[in-house]
Amino acid sequence: MKAPPPVERKLDMAKQARRQPAASDETTGPEEAGRTSVSVMAFGSDEIVERTEMDLRAIADLRQRHRVIWLDVAQSVDTRLLTAIGEEFGLHELALEDAVEADQRPKVEEYDDHLFIVASALEGNGPLRARQIAFFIGEGFLVTVREETVDSFESVRKRLRRPKSRIRHSGSDYLCYALLDAIVDGYFPVLEQIGETLDALEDRVLATPDNRDISDIHDLKRGLLQIRRAIWPHRELFNTLIRDEHPLIAPETTPFLRDCYDHTVQIIDIVETYREIASELVDVHISSVSVKINEVMKVLTIVATIFIPLSFIASVYGMNFDRDSSPWNMPELGWSLGYPFALLLMCATAAGLIWYIWKKGWLR
Amino acid sequence: MKAPPPVERKLDMAKQARRQPAASDETTGPEEAGRTSVSVMAFGSDEIVERTEMDLRAIADLRQRHRVIWLDVAQSVDTRLLTAIGEEFGLHELALEDAVEADQRPKVEEYDDHLFIVASALEGNGPLRARQIAFFIGEGFLVTVREETVDSFESVRKRLRRPKSRIRHSGSDYLCYALLDAIVDGYFPVLEQIGETLDALEDRVLATPDNRDISDIHDLKRGLLQIRRAIWPHRELFNTLIRDEHPLIAPETTPFLRDCYDHTVQIIDIVETYREIASELVDVHISSVSVKINEVMKVLTIVATIFIPLSFIASVYGMNFDRDSSPWNMPELGWSLGYPFALLLMCATAAGLIWYIWKKGWLR
Amino acid sequence: MKAPPPVERKLDMAKQARRQPAASDETTGPEEAGRTSVSVMAFGSDEIVERTEMDLRAIADLRQRHRVIWLDVAQSVDTRLLTAIGEEFGLHELALEDAVEADQRPKVEEYDDHLFIVASALEGNGPLRARQIAFFIGEGFLVTVREETVDSFESVRKRLRRPKSRIRHSGSDYLCYALLDAIVDGYFPVLEQIGETLDALEDRVLATPDNRDISDIHDLKRGLLQIRRAIWPHRELFNTLIRDEHPLIAPETTPFLRDCYDHTVQIIDIVETYREIASELVDVHISSVSVKINEVMKVLTIVATIFIPLSFIASVYGMNFDRDSSPWNMPELGWSLGYPFALLLMCATAAGLIWYIWKKGWLR
Amino acid sequence: MKAPPPVERKLDMAKQARRQPAASDETTGPEEAGRTSVSVMAFGSDEIVERTEMDLRAIADLRQRHRVIWLDVAQSVDTRLLTAIGEEFGLHELALEDAVEADQRPKVEEYDDHLFIVASALEGNGPLRARQIAFFIGEGFLVTVREETVDSFESVRKRLRRPKSRIRHSGSDYLCYALLDAIVDGYFPVLEQIGETLDALEDRVLATPDNRDISDIHDLKRGLLQIRRAIWPHRELFNTLIRDEHPLIAPETTPFLRDCYDHTVQIIDIVETYREIASELVDVHISSVSVKINEVMKVLTIVATIFIPLSFIASVYGMNFDRDSSPWNMPELGWSLGYPFALLLMCATAAGLIWYIWKKGWLR
Amino acid sequence: MKAPPPVERKLDMAKQARRQPAASDETTGPEEAGRTSVSVMAFGSDEIVERTEMDLRAIADLRQRHRVIWLDVAQSVDTRLLTAIGEEFGLHELALEDAVEADQRPKVEEYDDHLFIVASALEGNGPLRARQIAFFIGEGFLVTVREETVDSFESVRKRLRRPKSRIRHSGSDYLCYALLDAIVDGYFPVLEQIGETLDALEDRVLATPDNRDISDIHDLKRGLLQIRRAIWPHRELFNTLIRDEHPLIAPETTPFLRDCYDHTVQIIDIVETYREIASELVDVHISSVSVKINEVMKVLTIVATIFIPLSFIASVYGMNFDRDSSPWNMPELGWSLGYPFALLLMCATAAGLIWYIWKKGWLR
Repeated sequence: MKAPPPVERKLDMAKQARRQPAASDETTGPEEAGRTSVSVMAFGSDEIVERTEMDLRAIADLRQRHRVIWLDVAQSVDTRLLTAIGEEFGLHELALEDAVEADQRPKVEEYDDHLFIVASALEGNGPLRARQIAFFIGEGFLVTVREETVDSFESVRKRLRRPKSRIRHSGSDYLCYALLDAIVDGYFPVLEQIGETLDALEDRVLATPDNRDISDIHDLKRGLLQIRRAIWPHRELFNTLIRDEHPLIAPETTPFLRDCYDHTVQIIDIVETYREIASELVDVHISSVSVKINEVMKVLTIVATIFIPLSFIASVYGMNFDRDSSPWNMPELGWSLGYPFALLLMCATAAGLIWYIWKKGWLR
Repeated sequence: MKAPPPVERKLDMAKQARRQPAASDETTGPEEAGRTSVSVMAFGSDEIVERTEMDLRAIADLRQRHRVIWLDVAQSVDTRLLTAIGEEFGLHELALEDAVEADQRPKVEEYDDHLFIVASALEGNGPLRARQIAFFIGEGFLVTVREETVDSFESVRKRLRRPKSRIRHSGSDYLCYALLDAIVDGYFPVLEQIGETLDALEDRVLATPDNRDISDIHDLKRGLLQIRRAIWPHRELFNTLIRDEHPLIAPETTPFLRDCYDHTVQIIDIVETYREIASELVDVHISSVSVKINEVMKVLTIVATIFIPLSFIASVYGMNFDRDSSPWNMPELGWSLGYPFALLLMCATAAGLIWYIWKKGWLR
Repeated sequence: MKAPPPVERKLDMAKQARRQPAASDETTGPEEAGRTSVSVMAFGSDEIVERTEMDLRAIADLRQRHRVIWLDVAQSVDTRLLTAIGEEFGLHELALEDAVEADQRPKVEEYDDHLFIVASALEGNGPLRARQIAFFIGEGFLVTVREETVDSFESVRKRLRRPKSRIRHSGSDYLCYALLDAIVDGYFPVLEQIGETLDALEDRVLATPDNRDISDIHDLKRGLLQIRRAIWPHRELFNTLIRDEHPLIAPETTPFLRDCYDHTVQIIDIVETYREIASELVDVHISSVSVKINEVMKVLTIVATIFIPLSFIASVYGMNFDRDSSPWNMPELGWSLGYPFALLLMCATAAGLIWYIWKKGWLR
Repeated sequence: MKAPPPVERKLDMAKQARRQPAASDETTGPEEAGRTSVSVMAFGSDEIVERTEMDLRAIADLRQRHRVIWLDVAQSVDTRLLTAIGEEFGLHELALEDAVEADQRPKVEEYDDHLFIVASALEGNGPLRARQIAFFIGEGFLVTVREETVDSFESVRKRLRRPKSRIRHSGSDYLCYALLDAIVDGYFPVLEQIGETLDALEDRVLATPDNRDISDIHDLKRGLLQIRRAIWPHRELFNTLIRDEHPLIAPETTPFLRDCYDHTVQIIDIVETYREIASELVDVHISSVSVKINEVMKVLTIVATIFIPLSFIASVYGMNFDRDSSPWNMPELGWSLGYPFALLLMCATAAGLIWYIWKKGWLR
Repeated sequence: MKAPPPVERKLDMAKQARRQPAASDETTGPEEAGRTSVSVMAFGSDEIVERTEMDLRAIADLRQRHRVIWLDVAQSVDTRLLTAIGEEFGLHELALEDAVEADQRPKVEEYDDHLFIVASALEGNGPLRARQIAFFIGEGFLVTVREETVDSFESVRKRLRRPKSRIRHSGSDYLCYALLDAIVDGYFPVLEQIGETLDALEDRVLATPDNRDISDIHDLKRGLLQIRRAIWPHRELFNTLIRDEHPLIAPETTPFLRDCYDHTVQIIDIVETYREIASELVDVHISSVSVKINEVMKVLTIVATIFIPLSFIASVYGMNFDRDSSPWNMPELGWSLGYPFALLLMCATAAGLIWYIWKKGWLR
């Protein structure tokens, strides 16, 4: 059985929409000449070399001359190059397919001579969006495949450039840890911001509950559900890395991964706590609106309860019965103190009603 | 103990309603001559044969001449033929019964020389409905039994016809994977549509919350519960297939099944997220209606609070007390500035009430 | 230590209320001569004998002459007979106590030479009520102890009478399966009915939400909680039967029990789904009532907002200020177009208010 | 290291409040001479001796002369005696501390030659309160330490006095079972009462929902949470006793403990069901109040909608425009059928409004 | 690979904000000269020495001369000293980093010759705040690193000073238990206070539900979520300590730790119970406000329903139709009993309406 070249098949995949039948089986001729974007850092304890946009031969060359080589490849890279990289480092075809396909669930997969890890980075600015980053860790190399806009790697690069940093003196597993740690730590500022938004929302909901608040709470809740979906699988991911004692992960790196695991659990704790708070804010909103309705109702009821009976009294004495036809017809109108009597009647009625309302406790 | 022929017993089953005592034990004479609908594809790496509506001898013949044979049988097929197929391929009688009986839970069952799988396909058009598809995988054959209307298999057939496709070069296990993958991927467009409906609903609920919205949310929630019931068992299904390392599933196929497993977990994640969002939409609806009630109430209260006291003042001066009988009777009516005084009194009252309302914050 | 005869102790138990200290330890003399109700079916592949209301000697006789004997005993049976039956078949005293005591949780218990199973049957007609049925399975015999009114066994009896049925050709384990299957399948029509009630309730709640609806939803929910409590333990029950490979359960019967297990899981799925739908219906009800309140409020507000200012204007011109005392007193009354002016003012006011209301979107 | 006498330390503990640092380490001199309350029952198959308020020597004596001795000690017992009892029976110091300390979670702890069990009894009369009872089971003895007011043991004592009862003929493990069973069965009447209260509450909530109802539901829910906290650990307790096959628990007693376990699971089931029902009652209450508000609103709206426009018409014809100044001023007043016309106009208006309201469905 | 001195690296960490990339790899020159705060207690069964603010040499000296040494170090301690302490006792660098880094999740980590424990203390006064305390337990020493304000250790210190206390006669593991026990017991008064607040809130919510109540409930809920996040991991912590049988934990100490475990589970139980109660209070609040709205509405409706029709009648007889132009124009005005008739009509109307309202049950 003569199979088509593996990575070309993968690229075919990447072009298809997410929900097409998964394993496409043959090469379709034309290839996407996407904006190539590869950055390479190769280093040992004493030296470091940085390159961008380089060809495969140079990569192979760097690989031989340095202890660790890190290729950071954008998902939109030229497919020929990616195919070649895959072959150079012996990456498994299915893993490569997953790396360029969007919306993977974070996971670890073990292959013969490399580990394949998918992680999800959260970027704080703009609308919440989890961005996928794939890692291939092998003996002496790390290949990361990421969406265009992920930039949580910059701090790691800076540390790598310092000659005394631990990354420089360790293997590809520690480098991978450093990157994963940067990704996980990137969740904290986003959560902090959400925490502040929650506080602000609570104040607004209690002061002036309106539709914008519900909408904001609902959006926040959706955001938290998204973060939750992104972070949960990392727990299993780190757990697997720590537990399985893969030969590519040095025992010295394990405590650091345990640290990442702890942070992940902390993030999950915070997300779950925020979700509960957000869920309850909707109830708080309903309650707060009801309190407002009650207040409005009370004012209306007080005004109406006092003035409607008074108006009735006034209306009665505004009737036009003919006093001349009979002494029974509205004799009050002819009383010399009729008007004061009517006014007093009104005052007494009003006083009675106000006393009733006050006893009800509606005047605070 | 002389047992009746197995598949005839099964058909007896299929005719009975779902909730009849399960294991019917004897043949009832008349047999349903349903619309026979069998499509056969037999192939090796170099050749492929397609047939429809064929007899059993031809099937046996094709089976011997090609590496893999795939029989796609409609549930409504002629029972004699199905019995014969069961005997030809050595399928277990209970599995055959389950295959033609509707509303099975997705599952894997292992028999001596074949695997029996039940899956649930979701069709996007029309009302949500999970359709059952049964798979019998054996050495060199795959038999699928499906309800009439399932058509997610067409894309697999197309790929199968291409000479270079991987399906053509693999065994019945890979073909089965390709079909299961098509089924699982069929959930995504349905979920995408639901996601859009949720977004639209949220907007409507916040703008003009009415009964139609609650009804729609409730229907959506029911749909999601249905999808959830359909997809959940697939997780266990794929897990069993991956974990149990059955001899009929080649080790090369396992990573592909792991991919299916990942997609299933993703679908479950999405469904659970949507369920939470839909659940909260009901609360959002209640909240949004309350906000509307509050708004309406405020307008009513403002209008009533201002005009009811004014009307009362006007009513007082509309009383007919006889000014001639006594100087105490409504002397204001005779004042030369009585009317302006009354109007001013009204304006002052109105101003006071508006100021009070404004201080309450009811005018925004 | 001389213990009292075992079954007499049990009967003592049964007479006491459910919540009395459990293990009564001695015989109280008088014995209840309840309406004896025993039906016996003894059969082999070629013959079948049916009897009711028979004595113990006949039972022992039948047991020897036929392959399988099935005693179906009502809970209210004469206690002497039950004691005797227990001794004849070697049933454990504690199991016998449980069999006649109401409200047992469904379970399997293994004794030396027999299995003891408690199941819960649901009857569709009348108010929901789970009825307990106890099974004693041994080599060549099945004893069932049931409450008076359970009748889901009739269909099994019918099948048993047919000479070719599988039950006739199998052992007591298959007979027990057939009865358990009948019990489990009896849940489906009840659930179907509940499903229909839920649909009807949803329509009513959205159209005319009133107190009767909440009451009905609440009752439905309680019913579902009851069914759930009845069905859940069956899952564990069948799981135990399948997993434990007891010598009394033939390996050929296991796939049939797996079928029962699948049905039980399906019932649980449906019950949980219905519970979620019912829970949400209360929220839907609240929401629906709020929508109604909002509609009513809008009508009131529109009417009041338009007519209260108009009435005020009319009241003003109904005041009786003395136009003779001063030209400042209500000169409008003397204008030649005073009345048309007043009407126009009212129209303008009404138009303005209607426009305001229309802009608010309250006129649909 | 010279440790202080163990039980004196414990008593020190008991005097301190629950939340003090747990392990007090030294003896504080003064000892509480609490109201001693010890009741002893010592028995064999043929004899039984009962004593109260006895000294240690007598206990040791009884222990030797009878097969089983049961000391029932109140928590408030004289500490010297308790210390002595602990030494006589070789009870572990930490277990003794737990026995007299309130608010322990029910549990089993295994010591070298005795088992220590803590259980929670629920008393039906008065406010719900779980009372702790500690059991020390050893070879031939049972020591129970309980709060003053627990009295569920009386029925066991009665049975013990009957010469033929099983307790008399069994060991301390069966006696302990009988007491635990009495404790567990004591939950049922409490739950039954709660069930009835729930039913009554539901009726009240639907008929006349007021604040007292919410308060009652809330109290009921708190009670259920309390019972749940009390009963849940018993499940683990009995599970441990059954599973661990401790030498002090005779194999013959295990089925009886399994019975207790079943009852515990049943109680948990009922508590959870009641909690769900109570939780939903709050929603039912909200819904019921909303329905009432809607009804009240409808009446108000109907009355206001009909009479406010009518009053407006009457007000218009109550205006005082001077018909003499101009023919345009209220000519209707001079029409010979002006008044009938006005009344007709009002009737027509009212009819229109009633028709509108009727069409809305607000008149039922 | 020449690594920088370990603790200096850690301090670098501590200065960085929580969410910076975790493992900083090199020393940054300047060192924080924080307020040094170390308290040392060294003791054997017969002697005890207390010191504060001492140098390293003295510590080493004390360590040799006494059986157990306890260093209680504030997180803000001079970093040089902490580095030195770490070297003196052989503490792992990562553990030291965690000890000074805030917001760790409680956990146990096992290192070669010491255990590292992180716990969370809750302080009752002021706003709820969990404070982190780190423990390093080794052979003959205990190092605690805590935030400035934790003071739950004072009671342990007092007991330590008493010559006969068990702590004095035990090892560092028992001392560590005593401190952990003090921390766990510190949760109870906080929870008690929350319980009282819940009770008070419930009363307020039912009497006068307003916005302040919702706000208070919401804050309480957040507090409970915080406590829950703090206490939950302790359960796992104690479980690990008990289960793993680490050589540094003497078997005699295990029952004491089991006691701590029991307390932790009790705290968790209480927190979960309180959370449920608090969650329901929001619903109770909504319900209570609705009841108030209903009451207000009823008063308004009663007043309006009675007086609006009466006012209408009065308005009708206030119309000015010209009785002179036609006998059809308001003849009632000329009736000799016109006015009494009108008053009677009003009374009849009012009576009818009051009867209707009374029948509705709105007058209680």
